[in-house]
Amino acid sequence: MLIKNELIEIKTSEGISIHNITLRIEKILTATAIQNGQVLVFSRHTTTALAINEDEERLLDDVKAHLEKLAPSSGKYLHNDLHLRVVPPDEPMNAHSHLMAMMLSSSEVIPVVDGKLALGTWQSVLFFDLDGSRTRSVLVQISGE
Amino acid sequence: MLIKNELIEIKTSEGISIHNITLRIEKILTATAIQNGQVLVFSRHTTTALAINEDEERLLDDVKAHLEKLAPSSGKYLHNDLHLRVVPPDEPMNAHSHLMAMMLSSSEVIPVVDGKLALGTWQSVLFFDLDGSRTRSVLVQISGE
Amino acid sequence: MLIKNELIEIKTSEGISIHNITLRIEKILTATAIQNGQVLVFSRHTTTALAINEDEERLLDDVKAHLEKLAPSSGKYLHNDLHLRVVPPDEPMNAHSHLMAMMLSSSEVIPVVDGKLALGTWQSVLFFDLDGSRTRSVLVQISGE
Repeated sequence: MLIKNELIEIKTSEGISIHNITLRIEKILTATAIQNGQVLVFSRHTTTALAINEDEERLLDDVKAHLEKLAPSSGKYLHNDLHLRVVPPDEPMNAHSHLMAMMLSSSEVIPVVDGKLALGTWQSVLFFDLDGSRTRSVLVQISGE
Repeated sequence: MLIKNELIEIKTSEGISIHNITLRIEKILTATAIQNGQVLVFSRHTTTALAINEDEERLLDDVKAHLEKLAPSSGKYLHNDLHLRVVPPDEPMNAHSHLMAMMLSSSEVIPVVDGKLALGTWQSVLFFDLDGSRTRSVLVQISGE
Repeated sequence: MLIKNELIEIKTSEGISIHNITLRIEKILTATAIQNGQVLVFSRHTTTALAINEDEERLLDDVKAHLEKLAPSSGKYLHNDLHLRVVPPDEPMNAHSHLMAMMLSSSEVIPVVDGKLALGTWQSVLFFDLDGSRTRSVLVQISGE
């Protein structure tokens, strides 16, 4: 079995931003000799997440509105009482971002068949920053033979 | 390591339908010699999803009502302004189906122990079509030894 | 490829309880010789779930409130009409717990790099009992080389 680990860095923008990382994952896959196996995409932060869905601009705006509806950034959250916890001076009030992350996924696993991601026609791997802007990292692990 | 890939086809019904595909996955597993490893079940559409839960008819109706409550099909969505995008003539207004899919999972990974799916007593692998009726496909990848 | 399967038992408390099982998973990993691969953590019940996020007490209370808001325990659910199903005498009215489980994840997959879980700084593996108190089990499968 071959295993290849590689970090992807993503520069994000204010608030919620959604980034299609499919091509970057495909590039890492193509550079290996793996024909059959899987790609594990792993978000390494507690206010970022992954999903596999359609990369259509207006749909992604609907997704942002949907997340904001279910976990409003203006809501009252215990985690945001920063004076009650030991926090660094630049700690953001981001409880809603954590809640949004938990409704999405920390990782996605995609089968590799004949050297390619076995995604459906409209599927893209989407990285969500739910508390930007920052530089974020995603670990891509490809395993197989 | 052995790796076996197989597609399952599922004919779905109108609106939201939920299909227990556990037996079909077990059948694919039994046909391999794999005793120890995992099954990756991967939904290949952007308005279908997977979950592992109890296959109890009335609970599944509760799940449908819950999804409809969180992402109402009657809601106003940018993705549904079909005149603002280049779309095929039969494009459905299905933003809510995409949102529901993202609240569930694109894939499920189930451990295989002693040649069997290591599911708990009440767990079934459930396939959701959130925008039926259609013929859908799920990729089952079994890997192990 | 090496594969190690081990069950973790978790004693939970009333209602929703959230348990950080990261250290227990790390202990199982360290006892193997696996340097490179992945850990599959699999919840074996239909009213338990997993998530990877920050183990901060007040945030976890926010998560409980958020789940209760989206799937209220006081809601009206078909699954709770126990007289309409064949059930054991101690069957709980727990439709909301099933719905909460489906919004979270049945499993988490974490890359192993250089013999360690490749978690980000603030990430912990969290086990949710959504219908306690009970003794629950989680299957940890470590595979790699």
